Amino acid sequence: MIGPKIKELKVTPIAITDPPLLNSVGIHAPYALRTVIELITDDNIHGISEIPGNIEIDRLLDQSRAVILGSDPFQLNKLKADLFERFGKDEQDTRGDNPWDNRKLVHVFSALEVACLDIQGKICNRPVVDLLGGRCRDQVAFAAYLFYKPKGAGGVFGYDVDPNATGWDAARQASAESSEEIVIQAKSMCHKFGFKSIKLKGGVFHPEVEVDTMFQLSDAFGSKVPLRFDPNGVWTVETSIKYGKQMEDILEYLEDPTRGQAGMAAVRKALKIPLATNMCTTSFEDIPSGIALSSEDIILSDHHFWGGLRESINLGKICSTFGKGLSMHSNSHLGISLVAMVHMAAAIPNLTYDLDTHYPWQSEEIIVGGRVKFEDGKVAVPREPGLGISLDYQALERLNQNYKLCGLTTRDDTTEMKKFHPDWSFKPIRW
Amino acid sequence: MIGPKIKELKVTPIAITDPPLLNSVGIHAPYALRTVIELITDDNIHGISEIPGNIEIDRLLDQSRAVILGSDPFQLNKLKADLFERFGKDEQDTRGDNPWDNRKLVHVFSALEVACLDIQGKICNRPVVDLLGGRCRDQVAFAAYLFYKPKGAGGVFGYDVDPNATGWDAARQASAESSEEIVIQAKSMCHKFGFKSIKLKGGVFHPEVEVDTMFQLSDAFGSKVPLRFDPNGVWTVETSIKYGKQMEDILEYLEDPTRGQAGMAAVRKALKIPLATNMCTTSFEDIPSGIALSSEDIILSDHHFWGGLRESINLGKICSTFGKGLSMHSNSHLGISLVAMVHMAAAIPNLTYDLDTHYPWQSEEIIVGGRVKFEDGKVAVPREPGLGISLDYQALERLNQNYKLCGLTTRDDTTEMKKFHPDWSFKPIRW
Repeated sequence: MIGPKIKELKVTPIAITDPPLLNSVGIHAPYALRTVIELITDDNIHGISEIPGNIEIDRLLDQSRAVILGSDPFQLNKLKADLFERFGKDEQDTRGDNPWDNRKLVHVFSALEVACLDIQGKICNRPVVDLLGGRCRDQVAFAAYLFYKPKGAGGVFGYDVDPNATGWDAARQASAESSEEIVIQAKSMCHKFGFKSIKLKGGVFHPEVEVDTMFQLSDAFGSKVPLRFDPNGVWTVETSIKYGKQMEDILEYLEDPTRGQAGMAAVRKALKIPLATNMCTTSFEDIPSGIALSSEDIILSDHHFWGGLRESINLGKICSTFGKGLSMHSNSHLGISLVAMVHMAAAIPNLTYDLDTHYPWQSEEIIVGGRVKFEDGKVAVPREPGLGISLDYQALERLNQNYKLCGLTTRDDTTEMKKFHPDWSFKPIRW
Repeated sequence: MIGPKIKELKVTPIAITDPPLLNSVGIHAPYALRTVIELITDDNIHGISEIPGNIEIDRLLDQSRAVILGSDPFQLNKLKADLFERFGKDEQDTRGDNPWDNRKLVHVFSALEVACLDIQGKICNRPVVDLLGGRCRDQVAFAAYLFYKPKGAGGVFGYDVDPNATGWDAARQASAESSEEIVIQAKSMCHKFGFKSIKLKGGVFHPEVEVDTMFQLSDAFGSKVPLRFDPNGVWTVETSIKYGKQMEDILEYLEDPTRGQAGMAAVRKALKIPLATNMCTTSFEDIPSGIALSSEDIILSDHHFWGGLRESINLGKICSTFGKGLSMHSNSHLGISLVAMVHMAAAIPNLTYDLDTHYPWQSEEIIVGGRVKFEDGKVAVPREPGLGISLDYQALERLNQNYKLCGLTTRDDTTEMKKFHPDWSFKPIRW
């Protein structure tokens, strides 16, 4: 059995225009960084993927060339073992202080796995979903993901604003500091994309303000639209219980109200609504203590942070085995990540919640055919071989130029916030 | 994307000659039953699999024709959902009283999944292991699996015995009631197949006798050959602790000394050696309580009983996530099951124990080329597309005739034992 081997790895950092979305850590910079990976086989099959951009991860991806060149794109178990053997010790790769999994090798393997699966699908003439057990559904549903944005939004925060924009394009650029403005944002986003669930990223304003926003959303959309709220981990256990109880009748789930599994477990005992997490249980190493503590009801998977599509499917089985729900987290991203999420979500029987995506907040695209289409809040699972998409090299070059010019090399929402509020500091627990 | 569809399902029950192997339930009948499944696509690609034979499961396989005919061999998630939707309720499919998972749909899906993966591999021109993440190893190591056999063995128990047999063929047919005879059996089997680990199926004689056998094996093979002992669940907790302690210095692991997770947890607390199971934690539904109780250290997977190759890989990830070991259980089987086990084992990073197999106890074969070869106790992972084997239709027909003539329709070691010991009864806890 001699098949094609990988002869080339291209690593292209890009910067995509991003609005000034507020969160508990600070504010999105004018550009979100992504890294685009392209693997090419000796018979010229191309496989692509996209991960959160970070100069250190890009460096490790460049170094991983020594491991992946000449290898068989089907031998993913071996690739992972080789990567960890070669770089696992040198890199002193650790989870870091962030609540999510910062291990560079987890990101790097995820990037290479998706690109290899894209190649595998093209070799087999099958969409990636078929290599993962086949489709459980033909479309994958996403949720409207709302954010507070500062007054003056684009103008003040260094983003280009189109004064003639209308509809969602206007709402995307507008400020959203009040509950009323968030409702306008939600209506505009749901109108444009057809989303049937809504999530608000909180942890920005005082809990009273944010809870008011959730009630205004509930009033505006009624009980048929599931609502989720994410205080981004900055509430104490007491605050989480107090405001969680107030929202028990209007939330589908409450996401990471507080920090750490022990805190989540205490909140969970006191509340009747499910708790979801992408900050407290964020890697397989966290699972045993999360199960022992009963800290959450729903895990928000993310193939970039959980080590690829197959590992995320394993996570899905762990969730169904232990009676937990599964949904999906997102960062600012483009269509390659979106389509990978769609293939994976289609292959997981129990991934029945509408998924998070930042995609509506971005307006650029680097795949042929441009922006991925949503219908009724859903993306159709591709039927073409591999991921079913291909790179628009001119668009890629343009966003790579953006990267070179923008001066950013890693995401740092706190530093960005300090440009406008010099006294800003990130507080893990704020209220 | 239009690919081949399944146009035919053949279900062929077979009976294979089996020696009178003793266990806690009774004795192996002269024939072990297996069912061979063949799926054929509309472009004439054949996929095969083999599962434990049972007339009720064969019936359900026949009925499953209505679901699988016309379907795409890549859509395994959909196949499973369709099977459970169609038959899940009618069949009142339950775990049953046996300690392993008797749900017919679990067996049926496992059978169809392996045959579909065989087809997928042929379509993609890749061995099945490559569709599961690729090979972690080029050979898969098995253990010598020893059994007590009654005096008179073949002659008395209705098996043909070849008086001119030599070497392993002679040992396979000989009686083995004493420790000395088991040591002879072990030496002969290890000489023939090159196994580097040894397991004894116990629960047959008084613990004093069986522990003596383990010590004689330890004396004969030395500390470099890992020894496992399986009392088959018929010891009390007290007996398990008493005799387990005696064997602490000579066992790699102790398998199912007693029945049930609570009993296993009590034994585990008292012993320094790892406990393994294929009787107390035998399905995903058993995992949460097994984790909560810390009942075992090692799960013995079996794709026939855990719902297929992909589900067994999921089980492997659960084991690594929770710090448990993984090995593999077996029943009397032929080469199709063996090769499926090899593909799967090669794709699981943490499947590092030598696997169980009954294969040396069988002498027939239904695949082209005859019996699978062991070198140094290992089977090479095939590099041909799919499972890498094909059916010998004449041999299959011969063993199907055996099935029709032998009169057995399901495995029943207790009834078999009563033919020779009318007062025999199975006791879940014997000592």
